[in-house]
Amino acid sequence: MALTPEQGREIEQQRAAVQQTRRATVPALEEVLYQPFPVLDHGFVRVIDYMGDDAAIVQAARVSYGRGTRQISNDRGLIRYLMRHRHSTPFEMCEMKFHVKLPVFVARQWIRHRTANVNEYSARYSILDREFYIPAPGQLAAQSASNRQGRGAVLEGADAERVLRILRDDAARTYTHYEEMLNEDAEGNPRDPAHPGLARELARMNLTLNIYTQWYWKIDLHNLLHFLSLRADPHAQYEIRVYAEAMLDIARRWVPIACEAFEDYAIGGARLSRGGIEIVRRMLAGEAVKQEDSGLSKREWDELMELLGRG
Amino acid sequence: MALTPEQGREIEQQRAAVQQTRRATVPALEEVLYQPFPVLDHGFVRVIDYMGDDAAIVQAARVSYGRGTRQISNDRGLIRYLMRHRHSTPFEMCEMKFHVKLPVFVARQWIRHRTANVNEYSARYSILDREFYIPAPGQLAAQSASNRQGRGAVLEGADAERVLRILRDDAARTYTHYEEMLNEDAEGNPRDPAHPGLARELARMNLTLNIYTQWYWKIDLHNLLHFLSLRADPHAQYEIRVYAEAMLDIARRWVPIACEAFEDYAIGGARLSRGGIEIVRRMLAGEAVKQEDSGLSKREWDELMELLGRG
Amino acid sequence: MALTPEQGREIEQQRAAVQQTRRATVPALEEVLYQPFPVLDHGFVRVIDYMGDDAAIVQAARVSYGRGTRQISNDRGLIRYLMRHRHSTPFEMCEMKFHVKLPVFVARQWIRHRTANVNEYSARYSILDREFYIPAPGQLAAQSASNRQGRGAVLEGADAERVLRILRDDAARTYTHYEEMLNEDAEGNPRDPAHPGLARELARMNLTLNIYTQWYWKIDLHNLLHFLSLRADPHAQYEIRVYAEAMLDIARRWVPIACEAFEDYAIGGARLSRGGIEIVRRMLAGEAVKQEDSGLSKREWDELMELLGRG
Amino acid sequence: MALTPEQGREIEQQRAAVQQTRRATVPALEEVLYQPFPVLDHGFVRVIDYMGDDAAIVQAARVSYGRGTRQISNDRGLIRYLMRHRHSTPFEMCEMKFHVKLPVFVARQWIRHRTANVNEYSARYSILDREFYIPAPGQLAAQSASNRQGRGAVLEGADAERVLRILRDDAARTYTHYEEMLNEDAEGNPRDPAHPGLARELARMNLTLNIYTQWYWKIDLHNLLHFLSLRADPHAQYEIRVYAEAMLDIARRWVPIACEAFEDYAIGGARLSRGGIEIVRRMLAGEAVKQEDSGLSKREWDELMELLGRG
Repeated sequence: MALTPEQGREIEQQRAAVQQTRRATVPALEEVLYQPFPVLDHGFVRVIDYMGDDAAIVQAARVSYGRGTRQISNDRGLIRYLMRHRHSTPFEMCEMKFHVKLPVFVARQWIRHRTANVNEYSARYSILDREFYIPAPGQLAAQSASNRQGRGAVLEGADAERVLRILRDDAARTYTHYEEMLNEDAEGNPRDPAHPGLARELARMNLTLNIYTQWYWKIDLHNLLHFLSLRADPHAQYEIRVYAEAMLDIARRWVPIACEAFEDYAIGGARLSRGGIEIVRRMLAGEAVKQEDSGLSKREWDELMELLGRG
Repeated sequence: MALTPEQGREIEQQRAAVQQTRRATVPALEEVLYQPFPVLDHGFVRVIDYMGDDAAIVQAARVSYGRGTRQISNDRGLIRYLMRHRHSTPFEMCEMKFHVKLPVFVARQWIRHRTANVNEYSARYSILDREFYIPAPGQLAAQSASNRQGRGAVLEGADAERVLRILRDDAARTYTHYEEMLNEDAEGNPRDPAHPGLARELARMNLTLNIYTQWYWKIDLHNLLHFLSLRADPHAQYEIRVYAEAMLDIARRWVPIACEAFEDYAIGGARLSRGGIEIVRRMLAGEAVKQEDSGLSKREWDELMELLGRG
Repeated sequence: MALTPEQGREIEQQRAAVQQTRRATVPALEEVLYQPFPVLDHGFVRVIDYMGDDAAIVQAARVSYGRGTRQISNDRGLIRYLMRHRHSTPFEMCEMKFHVKLPVFVARQWIRHRTANVNEYSARYSILDREFYIPAPGQLAAQSASNRQGRGAVLEGADAERVLRILRDDAARTYTHYEEMLNEDAEGNPRDPAHPGLARELARMNLTLNIYTQWYWKIDLHNLLHFLSLRADPHAQYEIRVYAEAMLDIARRWVPIACEAFEDYAIGGARLSRGGIEIVRRMLAGEAVKQEDSGLSKREWDELMELLGRG
Repeated sequence: MALTPEQGREIEQQRAAVQQTRRATVPALEEVLYQPFPVLDHGFVRVIDYMGDDAAIVQAARVSYGRGTRQISNDRGLIRYLMRHRHSTPFEMCEMKFHVKLPVFVARQWIRHRTANVNEYSARYSILDREFYIPAPGQLAAQSASNRQGRGAVLEGADAERVLRILRDDAARTYTHYEEMLNEDAEGNPRDPAHPGLARELARMNLTLNIYTQWYWKIDLHNLLHFLSLRADPHAQYEIRVYAEAMLDIARRWVPIACEAFEDYAIGGARLSRGGIEIVRRMLAGEAVKQEDSGLSKREWDELMELLGRG
């Protein structure tokens, strides 16, 4: 991760200023506020602001259910109950604002989650920096033969070198041409006054999809957890999963009880179909069920057996 | 406004606890944090939490426009520019959480604004308190003859008394029957053990629409201002407008620059149609335009003349 | 269900007009288009318009996955795969518009689903009809002793009669007073010219929560199924569940393959927690697991045993 | 625009099949259903499905306002009233589904509109075609000196040629390398069996931002018009504006009355600030107002004078 000296100073200033507040405050999160967590080769995630904590979830639930929540005496029990029964609105009462630096092709997956607020760096107004994502050698995976969206074995030796050289060279060349077409120096004056520069909004189209962009991304806890359940999942592409994992670490500092429940019920759990439940019941009753008489397709049967540790 | 002693104590506790934070903090808002602002006869609005301030809007805009924002040197100029040109995303980077107590018929209008998070007190789980909105005498307006959704002259004397008596009696009687059907005392035990109580989720249907409910309502600044532009408007029903006005006062403490811009461009301004602009141009050129040759309908013409102070 | 003669004629006209279209069309749904399905004592659900069918889900998925979807050869397999793996966006490509008549307290639960478009009859502009929901005797349930939001045994004999009398009398009396305060006849002229009528937006507050309202409600298939998974569930309140069941029947006519998958994986299935999966694995391995050494709370253990048919 | 022969045949089939329906149908739109409207060098917009028409807006409004809408006798008057007074919900009752082919950098702007449903072609699953946007010579604009996001004079002669050569060469080279890294033939078999292919989800990062992608995009009329008001605006980037203009043409076929109102009040109109209204009033009263005593900033004053035709 490469912070500019300017960004580094700004972060120091933000971290140094301490105010008094009556708001719900999470010391473990304050510790790392504004601090960038490195992700990939030049990216990062950092928390800019947050609202609420585990107690705020409980507080909102108690407004909803009134005296009805007295039955569940402690906060942990109540949060786990809410998570298990998909009572999602109390989790919406917490909010987090991130600053993220990420490659454009990752940003394109990410933005599909629509229930968030976004301010992205605009290449229409400003000039992007010369920074590209180049995979670490261990991530240069071949296409999986069995799974259309998956990765297979890692490329090695000359094969890996060739790919890395292509990625580096093409990113460098297209960026150099971008700068040439812009024809602007750091002050916005023409480098070569004899020629006009191309409009920024046009020149950017010459950049490759691994160039880094950045944005502010603000989301409530319920939708953040939904995002993490999809993107911290092993099926998610590695390059977005590492962001999700960094954010899950941050969320554990912020709302540890909600995160524990989330990991028990959402990430760590699994959904059984109507047919799947029937099969488990038959197996528990001692029957040796086979795929042929399970009523499940081959694909569903395999998924179920893997879940039950019999794959 | 009637806070229960329990609520009063809770607010005192919340206000007493002061923490250190590195987050953006607004002292003028901290002053009134958790404090209920009375609205109508038993309602209130209070701020439970907030994220961001005027500077957070600027910060988000500068991430978006990068070096492109250097042209506009100061924060006020930038915020006004964003508001004027409908660049709404930086305003979404601020968030506020309210606790509101309000009559059910007001809640039904309010909830139509969908881009907010809500936790409402549930009459399925818990028992509503005996509190109803009864209009102040000055608000007992007759139906407007000219405007389907408006109010006309205020009812007076015996007419007013009769209406107030009906509203009070019917609210009281239906509530007493609600309690009778529930047949529960404060501890949830049957008052009359010889008879079963009706389920809460059913008994509530006997209550009138002026009973008070309450909720937590969380919204970003852009959507809050949109809500206020519709609900603090003179065409809004008085009973929701007073909530909007209280919230606008709170917003002025929170983000004074954004609010000033909002009042200049959104609430205080007006939209001219294509035809309206044409007419203003002709009038400025000295022509005595009449409705007949304006191309506008009678209704639009009247609205325009009123706007131009010639109504 | 009481349709006005005017509404009856309108429906006949709508059903009589047949046009040619190149759009995806579902004959089984066309059969019942505009036709009201009765729900509760005066309510109904009817389909006003729809977009797409099962094939439209497949079509959208094939745009997304391109040649990648060739592996799954048939539509049914693909739709089931999408449902099982929570690939929800192709289901968003179908849309349905309903006209619903429902009691206000049901409307208040319903509106909590925010990802839909709504046009509700406005009691600010117009006068509501004299129609209230009065539960059928079999639905007059006592409060459940064990479950805060549930129903217990059905009230009988004099207990039931007393409740029904209260509900009927209070609804009738408050409505009569509503009419008195309005003081308008069917043409909008004062009934009693000697007295002013109260504004509609105020008079409505005297009505009870079981009065019927109506709305147009438009939603995409993914969000409709999410709504149905919560509201056609046995834990949902009976009075909204019957609407959800009527809509599920309609959805089966519209997108039979998607509905079958939905019933297998969403409604008919269940979620296991991380701990729950572990226990099933241990039981399948022959261990006699007890709650005490399961790591689950009593409540979670009971839920799991019930799911496994050992409750 | 280059349709593949396969796509061409599919469109012919879709257009040929005609069904009977009881739904609201718009003959002028049926005429062009499924038909691609060319945009830019390889892009297009085509309508895949639609729900509702001008009458559906009126129908929804009449449900909301009930007998209250009888005052406005005709549909056109009612639609214009709704548009003028920002009663947006009836416009949400119409829906349109588009199929769009567009360059990735345009897709990135477009997706910022979050209230729509999207299924985009996935380069994780499938291989993108060799198609790039190369601006027509008349669009090769220099950066505007006065406006950070604008275009200035058009590049000519050798300057233009150099830019076009760069864009073409870099797109071609990066695509060829993409294919090399993938190492797949049309059947998905390795071209060169001696080397493993790189995973698709990785190889795509080498492509430039002007490569074409495609998606299904479904949106309600209110949000479509909001999108068009921002993107058919002269300040929008040319490359997205041409899509917005094609869609506005389509919308005129679909809901001509709503579009006329939209063009009169939204696109063709303008917003005056509180201060701006005051100045117009003073000018109409005969005063020769100057910027210095207007209370407006220089920038706002200039915008106002331009609007009033005195720029």
